[in-house]
Amino acid sequence: MIVSLQRETFFEPLDLESGQRLSKWKLAYETYGELNEDASNAILIFHGLVGDAHAAGVYKPDDKMQGWWDGMIGSGRAFDTDRYFVICVNLLGGCGGSTGPASQNPETGKPYGLDFPEVSLADMVRSQEILLRKLGIEKLFCVVGPSTGSMLALQWSKSFPNRSHGAILIAGPARLSAQSLALNWAMREAVQSDAFYQDGDYYGKESGPRRGAALAFALGAIGWMTPHSMNSKFGRKFMEGRDTERPFGPQYLVEGFLDQRGRDFCKFFDPNSLLYLTRAIDHFDAAEGSDSLADAFRDFEARFLVVTYDSDWRYPPHESKEVVSGLEEAGVSVRLCELSNPAGHASFLRHTDQLSSVVNPFLTELESTVHT
Amino acid sequence: MIVSLQRETFFEPLDLESGQRLSKWKLAYETYGELNEDASNAILIFHGLVGDAHAAGVYKPDDKMQGWWDGMIGSGRAFDTDRYFVICVNLLGGCGGSTGPASQNPETGKPYGLDFPEVSLADMVRSQEILLRKLGIEKLFCVVGPSTGSMLALQWSKSFPNRSHGAILIAGPARLSAQSLALNWAMREAVQSDAFYQDGDYYGKESGPRRGAALAFALGAIGWMTPHSMNSKFGRKFMEGRDTERPFGPQYLVEGFLDQRGRDFCKFFDPNSLLYLTRAIDHFDAAEGSDSLADAFRDFEARFLVVTYDSDWRYPPHESKEVVSGLEEAGVSVRLCELSNPAGHASFLRHTDQLSSVVNPFLTELESTVHT
Repeated sequence: MIVSLQRETFFEPLDLESGQRLSKWKLAYETYGELNEDASNAILIFHGLVGDAHAAGVYKPDDKMQGWWDGMIGSGRAFDTDRYFVICVNLLGGCGGSTGPASQNPETGKPYGLDFPEVSLADMVRSQEILLRKLGIEKLFCVVGPSTGSMLALQWSKSFPNRSHGAILIAGPARLSAQSLALNWAMREAVQSDAFYQDGDYYGKESGPRRGAALAFALGAIGWMTPHSMNSKFGRKFMEGRDTERPFGPQYLVEGFLDQRGRDFCKFFDPNSLLYLTRAIDHFDAAEGSDSLADAFRDFEARFLVVTYDSDWRYPPHESKEVVSGLEEAGVSVRLCELSNPAGHASFLRHTDQLSSVVNPFLTELESTVHT
Repeated sequence: MIVSLQRETFFEPLDLESGQRLSKWKLAYETYGELNEDASNAILIFHGLVGDAHAAGVYKPDDKMQGWWDGMIGSGRAFDTDRYFVICVNLLGGCGGSTGPASQNPETGKPYGLDFPEVSLADMVRSQEILLRKLGIEKLFCVVGPSTGSMLALQWSKSFPNRSHGAILIAGPARLSAQSLALNWAMREAVQSDAFYQDGDYYGKESGPRRGAALAFALGAIGWMTPHSMNSKFGRKFMEGRDTERPFGPQYLVEGFLDQRGRDFCKFFDPNSLLYLTRAIDHFDAAEGSDSLADAFRDFEARFLVVTYDSDWRYPPHESKEVVSGLEEAGVSVRLCELSNPAGHASFLRHTDQLSSVVNPFLTELESTVHT
């Protein structure tokens, strides 16, 4: 599937929860499949923390890398492009084409850096709703999100309780635990303490906070994997061709992996976006403004599928079950699937066949509900 | 108990496993209780990664902080100073008075920094054995170690299989898992990517890698605690008096804790020591030089007590059980105690009453074995 990144610029100001305003802003997005005549077959996918709008397909026939959820999206796949019109939008505050801290600040003509305003998950969701209306979509068939995307899909339902028939939340909590707050803090500190961070004003300069951002990525990767999957993949093996003259350079296979992947990460991800996005996630609480999750979920009209992985220590099953309890208490239709997979949080990326096996029947049933 | 830090300087060179040599070196240590006439009542305690020789008591009557294991050491406590002569030595490579990267390099007259040679756990153990002989102790009553100290106590038994009657290993593995290697890597990267690291040559300068070292400490603290204990202690509460003008400064209680404790940590801990000590731990493998753990443990004459905590995700129970299996297979006397405690890895520090309840009977039995 050959796809292309699309861009939409908005000249109507976006008023943010913080009270600040983006006078001009843009979103980058991709779509897969065709929107049907009554615009009733749209599925909106929210990407995770370090994801982007490139969820499926390739840009050129010889591209080696498909989009991040290619196993889920395409002809005959769970999000079947023969039936559905699938949309994935780069998050506001991100760095994959949408407005974020690396974008030009219209007031100064320079990149925002730390002058970029705080954006919340509610702001991100609202920006995407504005795009959807521009695309002629009033009501979604389904919203879907893994990890951070799961919280965004929940926020969608809070912001627009009757604007989607279904919602699929994968491996995400109702709000971060103290440990998750601590890990996000550590990721941000890694970036900010880097010798080349320069208070976020590193754009166009020779050096940026690459080592710190690579460390932040490593912390993320440790969370996506499990002790078991790391032992299986790396064990205590040494790297081939390691430089023993640099005792604190990468020596073990696992160190080489974190080092190399971290460097790769820095090539496409803006460290300031990591700060803004993690902070937005920190502040998300599905119960905010209500006495309880159930109260917050009372008006939800969508049917929910909640998926969690038994070995996920980053967002463990009991956190997904808290969301399910809230939905049940609120009288919302919800199905919980706890999948067994040793790959931990990364299961949703690596084992799309298993995930499809629970998403497929949910979507089939959702269709029959919608059409009757 | 008023105690004092003692220092011993050695002028005989110490040949290290790396092939390098320390021509002159010193160890800082503390002792509690009295050595008996036949020097048979000595207990050697190995401290953990960021510990030091100050295991018990206070230096001055008005000191607010006792030594790190004060609940375990003293009159009537598990390591009863009325019966035993307890010794704790700052690790070689550390920064609590023993020779380490902050010490003066005799060749240059300046601090070693990264010119300090790599030291292994075997080197550390051997340096302490030399000190013990100087103190007139040929055979220990018991070696004890929590966390990193557990690996050192195991290394003691490997290096000197018949030089202790007992060994107590608390919350430590036979070797690090890939995840633990990754976390140590992250701690070192935090230090090395800091704007003020200056390739380890920060001694006597205005700024050192404080923020990076604080981050490394935070990563350690996340490992010592558990999701449950962090939620109980901090939840999602905001700090009092937080500075909302700095969105990426500490806002949540857990962030304030990590930030403040990290800053405190930098006041007494040399970041280069963190590099050397974590690397030494990485390289430790109790099976090294043998076909299996059982083979490596074959000559052990000590009786072992292995303690692990059910909620410890840093060094989880199955890792301690691997040590126990090796000991059993080698025909070594061993008792396993899996303690239930929600405090995770930090349980050994925070819940000394519970730990004493299994250490006490082991020591009593050990005494009866030794004296018959």
